[in-house]
Amino acid sequence: MHPFQAYCQDALARMKAEGRYRTFAELVKSRRGFPRYTTPEGREVVVWSSNDYLGLGGSDILARAAQEAIEEHGVGSGGTRNISGNTPFHTALERELAALHQKPAALVFTSGYVANQAALGTILASMDGNWQVFSDEKNHNSMIVGMKGARKAIWRHNDAAHLDALLSAADPAVSKLVAFESVYSMDGDIAPIAEIIAVAKRHGALTYLDEVHAVGMYGPHGAGVAERDGVLDGIDIVQGTLGKAFGCHGGYVAGDAAVIDWLRSAAAGFIFTTSMPPAIAAAALASVRHVRGAHDLRARHAERAARLKSAFREAGVAILPSTSHIVPVPVGEAALCREVSRRLFDAHGIYATPINYPTVPRGTERLRFTPTPLHGDAEMDQAVAAVAQVLRDVRGVAAA
Amino acid sequence: MHPFQAYCQDALARMKAEGRYRTFAELVKSRRGFPRYTTPEGREVVVWSSNDYLGLGGSDILARAAQEAIEEHGVGSGGTRNISGNTPFHTALERELAALHQKPAALVFTSGYVANQAALGTILASMDGNWQVFSDEKNHNSMIVGMKGARKAIWRHNDAAHLDALLSAADPAVSKLVAFESVYSMDGDIAPIAEIIAVAKRHGALTYLDEVHAVGMYGPHGAGVAERDGVLDGIDIVQGTLGKAFGCHGGYVAGDAAVIDWLRSAAAGFIFTTSMPPAIAAAALASVRHVRGAHDLRARHAERAARLKSAFREAGVAILPSTSHIVPVPVGEAALCREVSRRLFDAHGIYATPINYPTVPRGTERLRFTPTPLHGDAEMDQAVAAVAQVLRDVRGVAAA
Ligand SMILES: Cc1ncc(COP(=O)(O)O)c(C=O)c1O
Ligand SMILES: Cc1ncc(COP(=O)(O)O)c(C=O)c1O
Repeated sequence: MHPFQAYCQDALARMKAEGRYRTFAELVKSRRGFPRYTTPEGREVVVWSSNDYLGLGGSDILARAAQEAIEEHGVGSGGTRNISGNTPFHTALERELAALHQKPAALVFTSGYVANQAALGTILASMDGNWQVFSDEKNHNSMIVGMKGARKAIWRHNDAAHLDALLSAADPAVSKLVAFESVYSMDGDIAPIAEIIAVAKRHGALTYLDEVHAVGMYGPHGAGVAERDGVLDGIDIVQGTLGKAFGCHGGYVAGDAAVIDWLRSAAAGFIFTTSMPPAIAAAALASVRHVRGAHDLRARHAERAARLKSAFREAGVAILPSTSHIVPVPVGEAALCREVSRRLFDAHGIYATPINYPTVPRGTERLRFTPTPLHGDAEMDQAVAAVAQVLRDVRGVAAA
Repeated sequence: MHPFQAYCQDALARMKAEGRYRTFAELVKSRRGFPRYTTPEGREVVVWSSNDYLGLGGSDILARAAQEAIEEHGVGSGGTRNISGNTPFHTALERELAALHQKPAALVFTSGYVANQAALGTILASMDGNWQVFSDEKNHNSMIVGMKGARKAIWRHNDAAHLDALLSAADPAVSKLVAFESVYSMDGDIAPIAEIIAVAKRHGALTYLDEVHAVGMYGPHGAGVAERDGVLDGIDIVQGTLGKAFGCHGGYVAGDAAVIDWLRSAAAGFIFTTSMPPAIAAAALASVRHVRGAHDLRARHAERAARLKSAFREAGVAILPSTSHIVPVPVGEAALCREVSRRLFDAHGIYATPINYPTVPRGTERLRFTPTPLHGDAEMDQAVAAVAQVLRDVRGVAAA
C-alpha cells in the first residue's frame, strides 16, 4: 500500500472517531412538495437546511425555462465560452446581472466558488502582485483560496475600526483590496457595509463584496444588502451565486466595465472550463428577471425567518444572534450535533444538517435552519417543538 | 480612477493591438441540427470547434433525462452535497463513473476544472506537503493551478525517459505523484501511458491521469486511453469531464476507495460549493450508461477524424501530427489566425475558433477542428476546400 492510501485510511478513521465523518443524507427533492423531500425509502421529511432560500428551484418559472432551452438546445454547451460555448443565454444573463447590481458589466462562472477563487486570484496576481488584500476573518473558503499566495491582512469579523487600523498601517504604495461578505452564512450576521466602504475609500482601497447569501433576498430588487443599505456605488466588485436564492446553479461577479472585460480575458478559472449548460443559463436568467420584482416573496421570506426566531425563543431554544434569514441553533460538539440531527430526522421527519468542522470551528457545531416562504406555520411549530424536545433529551443524557 | 482600472484598460488595449482580444461568437446551438448552429441573426454555420465530441449533447437520451428530472425535482439542488444537496442521481452517477473506470469509487465535482484543481491541490497539501509532483510540461491549466505551491518537477512533454531521470534524481523520502493527460487537446497527441506507468511504478510514484479529452471516445467502454491500452490498473487516480464527449457538464475523479472517500471529506473545492443540479447529474448518468455500450458511435467518430485528416492532407493543408480525433491546423500568428477564422465564418459559414495565447503558446496559433459522428462527407469536403482557399488567400496577401 502506498503511504498516501494509509494516510487517507488513518484520516478517515480519525474523522469517524471524532464523530465528524461525513455521510451525505440521500434526499429526493420534489419539485411540487418543497420543502418536503423524500428519502430513497419513500419517507417524507421537511427540509430546513436548503439554500434554495426562496423555494424557487422547483418553481414553474425555472423549470419551464430550463426544459424549453433543453428542447431547443440540448444539455451541454460543448465548449468554453471562447470556443463555441457562448450562447445568447449566457450573454443575456450577464446583462441581467449587471443591471441587477447597477454595474456596467458582469461575468458568469460555473459556480460562486469558482467566481470568488478565480476573480480574487486573478486580481491579486495582476500589477505584478503589488496588492495587499484585507480579508474579514470569517470569509468563505472560496475567497480564502482566491487569496492564497497574496499579501494579506485579516481584520476582526465585521470590525470596521480594526480594518481602519490595518489599512492605516499598510504600505501606501501597495494597492489595497477589502474583501468581505454581506450575510455570513453560518452565523447569520450581516456586515456593516456602509462603514466598511467608508473606511476602504478613505484609504483608496477597492471593495470586493460576496453577496452569495443575500442576492435575491435583500434590497428593493434583490440585489443584496448593499442595495438594501443604499450603498451599491461603494462596492467595486460584487460577487454572487445563482445556486441559492435564485434556485439554479452558477456564480458571477459584477463591476466596472474594464475590470470585468479584463477578467473575461485573464481569469484562468473562467477561460479554461466548459461554460454552464445553456438551459442552466436560461433558468438563471428567468429567475433573476422574476426575482427582481418579487417584492412579496421577499417580504414573506423575512416574515418566516422572524417567526421562526421568535418561536425558538419562546420555546426556550437558544439561537445565535442572527440578523438575517439564517437561524443557527448552537449545539457545540461534533458527535452531539450529529446525534441531534439524527434524532430529528429519525423520530421527527426533520432534516437539519449538522454543521461541523471544517465548515465551522470546532466547539461551535450547530444546526442551521433556513426557513423559506414555503415553510408553513404548522411545519414551523412542529420543528421548534421537536428541536426543544431533542435538545432536552440529549442534554439530559449528556449531563447524567 | 483606481490604478487597477487603468491597468485593466491598458491590458485590454494591448490585447486589441496584438490581435488577441477575445470576442466570443454568440452561437445558438440547435439540438436537432447539430453540428449546424445559428447566429443570433439567423445565419446557419457548421461548427467544427465543439467539444461535444460525439454530438450527444443534443441527443434525446440526455434531453429526456434532464427534462424529466427537472419535472420531478426542479432545477437547483439548493445545497452542497453535505447540506441537502445530495440526491440519488449524484450517488448513482458516482457509482457509474467508478464502474466505467473499473475503480472502487468516484467523486463528482462541478466541473473538470474544479476536479483537477481540488483533487491535486488537496492531495499535494496532505501528509504535511511531503510531496513532489512530476508534471508533463503541457498539462492543462486546471492541473497547474492544482499544483500551485507544491514542490514540482516538469518533464518534457510525453517523454518517459525524462520523467525517469527526474524521478531518479528526486529525494527518496518524498512521496511522488506523476500527473499527465492522455489526449492533449490542442495538439491532439496521446501520452505513452504504459511507459509512464512503468517509470512511475519503478519509483513508487502514484499516477494521476486527466482523460478529459478521451473519456467516452477511447477504450472498449469509453473509459479513455488507459482502457484502450489495457492499463487502467496502473492509474491510481483518473480524472474526467462530463462536459465534452458525454455532452453534459461537470467533472470527476475515480480511484482507490479510501483516497476518494478522504477527498470527499477534505477537498475544499468539493465541500464548499452547491452540488450540480440534479437534472445535470441525471443527464450525465444517462449519457455515461449509453456511452459505455456505444461502440458504433466510437467507431464512426474515429472514422470521421481519419477522413478529415486525409482530406486536409490531400488538399495540401498542413496539420499537426495528431494521433487522436483532434485535427489542429497551424496558422501561427494571433491576428492572422483570427482573420482566417473570420473569413471562414463570414464567407463560408464555418465556425472554427482561433486558438490563441494563453490557450496555446504565442507563435503556435491555430484552428482546431473536432469532427463528430454527425459531420457528414459534404460538410467535411466543403470545410476542407474553404480552409485551403482562405489560407492561400491570406498567405498570398501576407507574402505580398
Ligand atoms: C459566502 C459564500 N461564497 C461563495 C460560495 C460558493 O457559491 P456556490 O455554491 O455557487 O459555489 C458559498 C457557498 O456555497 C458561500 O457560502
Ligand atoms: C485537459 C483538460 N482538463 C480539464 C479541463 C476542464 O474540464 P471542464 O471543461 O469540465 O471544466 C479541460 C478543458 O475544459 C481540459 O482541456
